[in-house]
Parts: sequence; C-alpha cells; structure tokens
Amino acid sequence: MTAQRMGFLGIVALVASLWANGAFAGPDREKLLADPGVYATFAAYSFTDDWGKKEGATRIALLTVLKGVVEQHREKIAIDLYLLRGLSDHADILFRAHANEMRDIQKFLVDLQNSAFGQQLKVAGIMHGLTKKANYVPGFPDELKTDLKAPSDPGPKPYVVVIPIRKSADWWALDQEKRTVMMKEHTEAALPYHKTVKRKLYHSTGLDDVDFITYFETSKLDDFHNLILSLEKVKEFQYTRRFGHPTWLGTAKGLDEIIDILAQ
Amino acid sequence: MTAQRMGFLGIVALVASLWANGAFAGPDREKLLADPGVYATFAAYSFTDDWGKKEGATRIALLTVLKGVVEQHREKIAIDLYLLRGLSDHADILFRAHANEMRDIQKFLVDLQNSAFGQQLKVAGIMHGLTKKANYVPGFPDELKTDLKAPSDPGPKPYVVVIPIRKSADWWALDQEKRTVMMKEHTEAALPYHKTVKRKLYHSTGLDDVDFITYFETSKLDDFHNLILSLEKVKEFQYTRRFGHPTWLGTAKGLDEIIDILAQ
Amino acid sequence: MTAQRMGFLGIVALVASLWANGAFAGPDREKLLADPGVYATFAAYSFTDDWGKKEGATRIALLTVLKGVVEQHREKIAIDLYLLRGLSDHADILFRAHANEMRDIQKFLVDLQNSAFGQQLKVAGIMHGLTKKANYVPGFPDELKTDLKAPSDPGPKPYVVVIPIRKSADWWALDQEKRTVMMKEHTEAALPYHKTVKRKLYHSTGLDDVDFITYFETSKLDDFHNLILSLEKVKEFQYTRRFGHPTWLGTAKGLDEIIDILAQ
Amino acid sequence: MTAQRMGFLGIVALVASLWANGAFAGPDREKLLADPGVYATFAAYSFTDDWGKKEGATRIALLTVLKGVVEQHREKIAIDLYLLRGLSDHADILFRAHANEMRDIQKFLVDLQNSAFGQQLKVAGIMHGLTKKANYVPGFPDELKTDLKAPSDPGPKPYVVVIPIRKSADWWALDQEKRTVMMKEHTEAALPYHKTVKRKLYHSTGLDDVDFITYFETSKLDDFHNLILSLEKVKEFQYTRRFGHPTWLGTAKGLDEIIDILAQ
Amino acid sequence: MTAQRMGFLGIVALVASLWANGAFAGPDREKLLADPGVYATFAAYSFTDDWGKKEGATRIALLTVLKGVVEQHREKIAIDLYLLRGLSDHADILFRAHANEMRDIQKFLVDLQNSAFGQQLKVAGIMHGLTKKANYVPGFPDELKTDLKAPSDPGPKPYVVVIPIRKSADWWALDQEKRTVMMKEHTEAALPYHKTVKRKLYHSTGLDDVDFITYFETSKLDDFHNLILSLEKVKEFQYTRRFGHPTWLGTAKGLDEIIDILAQ
Repeated sequence: MTAQRMGFLGIVALVASLWANGAFAGPDREKLLADPGVYATFAAYSFTDDWGKKEGATRIALLTVLKGVVEQHREKIAIDLYLLRGLSDHADILFRAHANEMRDIQKFLVDLQNSAFGQQLKVAGIMHGLTKKANYVPGFPDELKTDLKAPSDPGPKPYVVVIPIRKSADWWALDQEKRTVMMKEHTEAALPYHKTVKRKLYHSTGLDDVDFITYFETSKLDDFHNLILSLEKVKEFQYTRRFGHPTWLGTAKGLDEIIDILAQ
Repeated sequence: MTAQRMGFLGIVALVASLWANGAFAGPDREKLLADPGVYATFAAYSFTDDWGKKEGATRIALLTVLKGVVEQHREKIAIDLYLLRGLSDHADILFRAHANEMRDIQKFLVDLQNSAFGQQLKVAGIMHGLTKKANYVPGFPDELKTDLKAPSDPGPKPYVVVIPIRKSADWWALDQEKRTVMMKEHTEAALPYHKTVKRKLYHSTGLDDVDFITYFETSKLDDFHNLILSLEKVKEFQYTRRFGHPTWLGTAKGLDEIIDILAQ
Repeated sequence: MTAQRMGFLGIVALVASLWANGAFAGPDREKLLADPGVYATFAAYSFTDDWGKKEGATRIALLTVLKGVVEQHREKIAIDLYLLRGLSDHADILFRAHANEMRDIQKFLVDLQNSAFGQQLKVAGIMHGLTKKANYVPGFPDELKTDLKAPSDPGPKPYVVVIPIRKSADWWALDQEKRTVMMKEHTEAALPYHKTVKRKLYHSTGLDDVDFITYFETSKLDDFHNLILSLEKVKEFQYTRRFGHPTWLGTAKGLDEIIDILAQ
Repeated sequence: MTAQRMGFLGIVALVASLWANGAFAGPDREKLLADPGVYATFAAYSFTDDWGKKEGATRIALLTVLKGVVEQHREKIAIDLYLLRGLSDHADILFRAHANEMRDIQKFLVDLQNSAFGQQLKVAGIMHGLTKKANYVPGFPDELKTDLKAPSDPGPKPYVVVIPIRKSADWWALDQEKRTVMMKEHTEAALPYHKTVKRKLYHSTGLDDVDFITYFETSKLDDFHNLILSLEKVKEFQYTRRFGHPTWLGTAKGLDEIIDILAQ
Repeated sequence: MTAQRMGFLGIVALVASLWANGAFAGPDREKLLADPGVYATFAAYSFTDDWGKKEGATRIALLTVLKGVVEQHREKIAIDLYLLRGLSDHADILFRAHANEMRDIQKFLVDLQNSAFGQQLKVAGIMHGLTKKANYVPGFPDELKTDLKAPSDPGPKPYVVVIPIRKSADWWALDQEKRTVMMKEHTEAALPYHKTVKRKLYHSTGLDDVDFITYFETSKLDDFHNLILSLEKVKEFQYTRRFGHPTWLGTAKGLDEIIDILAQ
C-alpha cells in the first residue's frame, strides 16, 4: 500500500510522525544540483476545473497527499516547486526533479499523477535534461574563465524562468572551434548579468523535442530581460530555431508555502 | 482569511464600507502608467460554460467577488479592464496590471483565479512586459522629437487593441545605428495617426515568447487600421517574425461597467 | 431587462407583436452593404454537445431567443446568417454583421453570447474587416474598369465562401505602382468568373491576424474553384503568406430558414 | 417530421419496409464515381466519450438511426464508409459522399449531425473536392496514355488512404508545359503500382485549405508505401507545401459491416 | 460475443483457464520482430479524468479486460507495452504491435478502444511503419558491415524512446549514391553507441505523416543522448524536416507489470 492511497487522516499522521523523527534525510541535494551526469525533469501541471470547486478541508487533505508523495520520494530525488499560476499561460505549478536515474523521477511523477491530488492535475508540459560538464569553457581565455567563477549575489532570487531552446541543423554542422568562438561571444554578453541572474543549463537532445533547457533565478526581472536581449544580439542566436514555446515564468516556493497558497 | 473567501454578503458589506471610507486610495496610478521600469501583465480569460448557466443573483454575487479582489490589490497595482467578448476569438475579458514588482501582479492574479469568480474563468493568454525609456528617440532629428511630444486628441478612446510582436534574429543582429534609421522611418510613418491613436510599448524579451507588446487606444478604428497598414510598409516590418497571434480587440470598460454587462 | 432575459413565451409574444407593427425597419441595409467605411464582423460558432440533447420544444424556445436578439439589433446593423454545418470543419453557423461602428457589433454579439441561445454556442472564430474604396482600380485601363462594372448574373447564389488572406512583408514593401501592375493581372484573371461569382473585399490589417477577408457568393462552386485556381497562377499570389485557415464554406440562409433547420 | 426524429422502433420498421420494397434505388452510383464535374466530401468523425458508455441495445438503436439517415440520402448521393479507428489519430469513421450538388451533401451531413446518432459524434475533419478531366494526360506520349488505361487488379482492396495535398505558389506560377513535363515523370514513377493501388484525384482549391485530395485503395499497403516513396523522389514533389496532415488510413466497410463492428 | 463484452468475472475465469491450457501460444514473436515486410503500429493513449476516480476494485476489473483483449490478439500479433506517464507530455501508455497484416492490428486496437477499459482512454497518437531490408548497408565497406553485425550488450534496457522523422523533399531528390555516402557517415557516427543503445527502424512514408519511426532501447540514457547529438552533427541531419513532435520517452513493462502500476 503506497502513501497516497492511505486515508487522508492516516497520511497526515504518518507525515507528522516522519517529520518528527527526521526520517526524510533526502539525497545529497547539493550534489544532485551541482554534479554533471544528473537527470532533471521539468513537469508543469494545471489544475482541473474540479479543483476550484473543492471545499477548503478537502483541498487541505489533498495537499497533504501532495506533501506525502513529495516526501516519500525525497530519499532519491531532489524536488523543487514553483508557482506558475498568474504568470504562465496554461500551467499552475512546476516541479523540477533531479536524480541519478530517470526511472526514479518517473516513479515519483507516476505516484504523483496516480494520487488523489494528481487527479486534480492536467499535464501542461514535461521536459527532460541532463547536466554535463561545460562544453566550450575549456576553450575560453583564462580571464573569462575566472570571471565565470565569481559567485552570484547572495540573497533570495524569487523569480524563476525556464526557456527551452532548439538549435538549427546548421549549428550542429559547425565544427567545435567555430561554435567555441560564438559561445565565447555569448558568454561575454551574459557576463554583466552574472551576479544578479543565476543560470543552469540542461542538455535535452533526444530526451524530448528540444536541445537545451535553460533555467534562470533572479530577484531582478529587468536584469533578466536585459540578459536575454543581449543574448539575442550575438551571432550564436541566429542558429536558434526555437526559443521558448513555452516560456515558464514563476516564483520559487517551498512545499509548505505552495500548500498555503493553494489551500486558500 | 482573504476577501474572496468571505461570504458574498460579507464582501459586499466590506467593499461598501471601504468605498465609503475612501480606503482604496490605490498606488500612484499616473506614475505607474507613465514611468519606465514598471512591469505590466496582460491576462485574458474566457468564461467556462458554467458561467452562462448561472442565475442572475449568483452572477451578481460572483461579480462582487471580482470587485473585491480588484479593490484589494489596487493599493499596489494599477488595474485596467477590457471587454473582448464579441470582438476577440477565444477571450472574454482582459486585465492589464501595472506594478513595480511582478510578484504583486502574481498575487493579484492568483487571488483572482483562486476566487469563486475565478472558478468561472479559463486562462486565454498571459503576456508580460516592462516599460523602458525610448530606445531610438535620442537618435532622431529634433523636429521628429518635437512632433512626438504633441499630445493626442482629448476625449474618450473606447477601442483597445493589443498586438504582440516578435522580431527576427536578423533584427537583433543589426547594430543600433541601422536599427535607429529604420525606427525613424517607422516613427514617421506613424506620425499622421499620432493624434487619434494612442500607443504604449512594453518590452517582453525573455518574460514570455514575444519581444514586444504593443497597446493601442482609439475612437477611430479606421485610423488605427491605416496606421498598422503604414507600419507594414516600412523596412523595419520585414524584420518582424510574428505580428499578433493573438490580436486582442476590445473596448475599455470601468470595473462597474464590466460588472453591469456581465451581470445580464 | 433585455429581450433575451425575458421568459421564452414573453419574447415570442414581443417578437410577434413587433413584426406585426413593422417595428424592425432596420438600418439602410443596402447602404451598409455597398458603402466604403463600413465595419464588418464574421463570427462563426459551433454548438455545444448540450445542444444536441435538447428536446424539440426547448430548441424552438432557444431559437426564438436567437430571433429576438437578431431583431433587436437590426436597427443599427445588417446581419446575415450562413449554415456552415456539414461543409466546414469546426463551425456550424456564421454571422456576418455590417455596421458603422464596431461597438454596435460588439453589443450584438455580447447579447447573443450572453443569451440563453448563446449558452449553446462555442466561438469557432471571429474576424473583422473594413470596406474601403477600390485601391488599385483607379490605375487600371478604362476597358477593365468597364468590365468590372458589369453586374453579376441575377438569381440566387446559395453558396458562400469566406477566405482570410495575409500578405507577406515583401508585398507591403513594394511601391503602389508595382502592386497595381500585379493587381491588374489578378483582376484580369478573375474577370471570366465575374458573372457567376460575386466577390466582396474587407480590409483587416490590425483588426485581427489577417490582412483581408475575401467573401464569395455563387451558385456554381466549380466556377468558384476555377476562379481561385486562376488567382493562384498570377504573380501576386506569390506574395500571399496565408490563404484560408480557415476556409469557411456554407450556404446563405434567412433567419427563419436557419431556425427551421436547427429546430429539427 | 424527418426520418431521424422518428422513434427508434418506427425507423427500424420504416427502413425494413423500404428495403423490402427496393425503394432505395439510389443515384447512378457508377456515374457519380466515374464522371468529371462531381463534388465529393470527405467527412471524418470521432465518437464522444458518451458513446463508449452506451448499452448494447442503445448502440444498436442509434446505429439504426445512422442507417436510416444514410438510406434516406442515397437517392441523390453516393455514400461510402470507412473505419479509421485504430489506424488514424483522432478519427473513428469516415464518410465519402459524391453528388452533383454540394447542397445535397450538406443536407445529408446536417441530417447526420442533427440525428440522435450524430449527437455521439465530433467532427474530426471535413474536406471537399471536385472531379475533373485529367489535366496533363492529353500532353503525355501515347504509350503512357495506353498504360494508364490498363485496369487495376481485380479483387478486394480493403485498405484506404486519404492524403490532402497543397502545392506551393511556385508550382502554380509554372506554365502548363513545364508542369506537364513534371507530371509525366510523376505518372511514370507511379506506373509500377498501377495494378495494385487504385487512385482517385479530387481538386479542392478554394473549397477548403488544400489543393488536392488524393484517395487510394489497395490490398497491399507495402506497394502503396513504395508508390508514395517513388512519388516523393520526382521533381514535382519539391513543389508540395503540405502532404497529409492529416493522413487518414482505414479500411473500407459496408454500412452493415460498420454497424456490426460499432454495435459491439 | 467478444471477450471484452463478457462480465468482468467471466473474463477473469476465461483468461485464467486459457493461461492454464497454454492456449496463448502467440505468433512467432521473434520472427515478427526480426523480419522485413512486417507492419508495426505505435499507439499511445492517455487516461480520461474518469480513470483517476475509479475505485481500486473497478480499476482491477478494467485492467483484467485489458489483459483479456491483449491475450486474445496475441495469436496473430506481437504486442509490447510501455509506460510513458511521467516522462512523456500527453500520453500515459504506448502499445507497439507487429503483424503481417495491418488489418489484424486494427482489429486489436478497435477491440481495445471498444472495450470497457478502452473507454478510459483517449488516443494520444497513432503511427505506422513497415520493416524493410537495410537500404544503404549493401553499399557500405565490409568493415562497417561487420561492425554493424556485433550484438548489443546483454542485460535489460528499460528505457525506450520513439522519435518520428520526416525528411525534406531535397533528401528524396538526391540519388541513391549520394544518400548512401551520407548514410555511411550517419552510421559511423552511431557506431560508438551500438552496444548500449539498440535501434530499430520503421518506414512510414504514406502510412502516416512521417517518413520514419526510429525506436531505441537502452539502460544508459546519457549514451542515447550522446548518440542523437552525434547524429545531429552529420550532413544527413540537414535533410531532416521534422525530428520528434512527439518524442515519446518511457519504460518497457510487461503486461502484468503495467497492470500492477495502473491498479494502484
């Protein structure tokens, strides 16, 4: 019997007791978020019409199920939640899950969708990527390498943007050297925003219909806007066949924060 | 407990009393609508099939909830309403919200969508933009600068059109000087319609899937049509990859006016 | 209290009495259909699944509401109805409304969609156009001008086709003279079908996502097919970026005729 | 009172008695299927979710309504049925209707969609074409003309494929002679499959969003596959802007056979 | 009376007794999966909202129906199942069916969709292909031929990816020799992944809207990602007009395993 099939009260009790015992130690989250060779899935959902009609108590019970499912899988995967509602077109919440094996992510999302909470969700979009060592940085001049190592500004970065990218066939037909020259120009154009906009790159070719998932965190959306504008002005951008579609804009939220907002 | 979760009668009473006390002073609306560095969200919704089946009294109660949500957020954001029904494809109402922080707009739209009224809505489309200082005007001749400062004709401008624009990669690859020359031609083509068609520009790159949101107000739709026709004839238009899709055409309405129309 | 909110019996009585008194004199329909500077909206709807389940008596009551809404607005706008069901993809009925102000068309369509009948409809597509004086004809040779003035064959033209068109940026970049040469070739290619296929042109740029709405009436669909084939062979067609999508094919019906068909 | 509004039992009795009297002599089906100047509509439908929940007896009653509607219109139009379910994406059944007037086809499809059976259907796609005398054959060498006259192999050809085609503007801009040369190459590439794959061509320009509907019957789908592969290798294919979207693959079934399958 | 119309208990008993008697000997599965000239259908489905609301006992009864339908058709066709839920956008399960005749596959899928279990499914996508002898390998050097004959690594390959491909008209216009040169480069780029990624190719031209369905099995998704990346860098990729859309990523599951997961 899985957690999400237990009665609502049962799971509330279970979660409460597990929390109390510190049972959800979770995987080495820092490692999963920093290492190359890690898989990540971005899964966005919108709520069914039914959700809006639920009473407050039912919502809370269902959100407790969500909490149970997330906690149950935190042993193997690092899970982040974002609120897209109000800022993105056809999606309300976004999960980002990092794991060493895609199978573990599938188990989490199947449990989520099979759960009583999952029955309130419609899939808005699912994308996958793989983290890899920097492709072009080894060919960059030392000064640029040093600049890239500077840490971003501390403090909260509440806004999150996810933009999938597909390159043209012409891009892949270029040799590594030519691509390195263009990626150097790209990287230099991005440098002024290095401190206020945190970036993370996922390689998607073959895993879904895009080549890259670019992920951004910032507290200054105008800086983020100017960063993208700068990146559209370099030569490498001319080899981009798809940029966005969708663009997901949202705010990073803790699990309990999301539950509070959705319980209202 | 948030306003939209109160009983219908409760909120009617609350709104009435707040109005009486002048509690909704709101932000400096003029400033938000005139300043650079302000964020704006265009959020269009259509009604669910359910809405049409509601009794008059229920509709009025739900519209009172709408009023409550809007008034509650007017402290931080400037909210405009437009009736798209009958003139736009798959959208019935449009909100334009200006704020200094996108987070405040999200809070408003989450409250709206979570509310009893929001359960009658489906998202038709959400776009975001940032207001910025004029990009090319500093490079224009003085005469053109002067012409641009002339005020538009006074009087009501009931029609509103919102057209998103995406430029081609070739456009962004041009240097600022070449783009200024073309934007000068663009601006001159628009001048004859300066008095009867009010324009406002929002920069969107990265915030959604377009580069600009262009917003127009007019009482003369034929002038607006001729304006766009003129703009399609200048060279800069050849660097436009997407124009519209959607084009939202509607009429500007006060909150009470919209409520009256929708209550019928 | 508006007509469509009255009881069904009430409205039947009202309509009957208004008809008896000749109260629906309507606007100068001929003028609206012939003049330049007139706005036209093409609004297509499909029926909800619910419609098919209604009893005959309920259908008749709802169609009486439709009649009431149409008659109520005939004072200011010229309304035509077409049956698309069976011939067009995702639309069942099409309204074409001409008026001097788009606002009056919006009022009609909002009343229609808000009415009990409108609750049985889903919007399939809405497009707008403006009638204008012929753009290129002044530059045509006299003989061609004369040919164009010949009236089309008398008699009923039951088939109606509506095709939206978007021109390429290259088209608008051409000067008026070059476009006139090509439009002369276009017009000559169309001449052989002048008698059996009636055409009307609406200018849409800016009002929706197309540049033109072309409207055709004929009793000979093969002539219409050959006309379009001829138009695709002239040079001007190479500057067409979108042709159709949708193409609406239907039959012109009087209001009572439509009601009879839909009541079954 | 039309047939499909009669009680189920009534229509069963009516159909039975009409059959017994040989009242459904129908039009000259052979002539409609062979002559030029005949209109054909391809109308594909999928079943609503509701259909799957009907009891066997209800299904049979509804299918009897289908039979009644088809038989009622067989006097004027030739109707063929195909089962797409399982082989095509979003369509379950396909009607092909030939008639001398499109109006008669519309009457059939309106009766079908208005009927109790039609309420179980959603339109998946509707396309129209006109049969015409061969366009390019008169310019072909005599030997090729003779080869084209050879009859196809006798015996059942259970598989049916319908592929809509849109040519590029460049194709229509070519003169007849150049197109004839290319169509000769096209025809020669198709010759090896002449015996096992029966083809029929419909001209659609203006009647919907495509230029041609190509219709194929075969018992050997691998021959059909190789035929299309050969046609994609000739020069004329480079002037094809859309090929398929949708491609409908199904099996030809008699009315009673379809009813048997759907009754299960 | 077909199996899936029997009562749930009846079918459970039937399946149990057939299993006991070894009645489901099935076709020569190995032969169907290895031979040229075999048809394969990829049919993906998502669950209706209704599915999520079913009680556990009802789910199990419905899954027993699924089992019955699959077993009933295993005499003529080889059926594989994949779990897409959580990893693919709008599909939950995928069937791959191989048979000597497409008709037999249609019978299976019609039975599936008509069954009580099928009423819980919505079609997400259906594609068809034909297995053929290798097209270009005969023109490859002997060493490459030998390399291609090396078996892939033993052991389970749980991940499955299905990517449809459409080539450009320019590709088909090239002569066989030029295409062989490019396919040799393609094949060499793929060689390093030969052991960890199993590939199978289906030819689709004419059978649906793509030219090829490429099917991959692996336990190392990073190798698969790098394989596709390598294939995008060779010249032949520039003749690809569509790659994916959809890309289906899932995990191979036995029928009983799928039933276990879906029963939860």
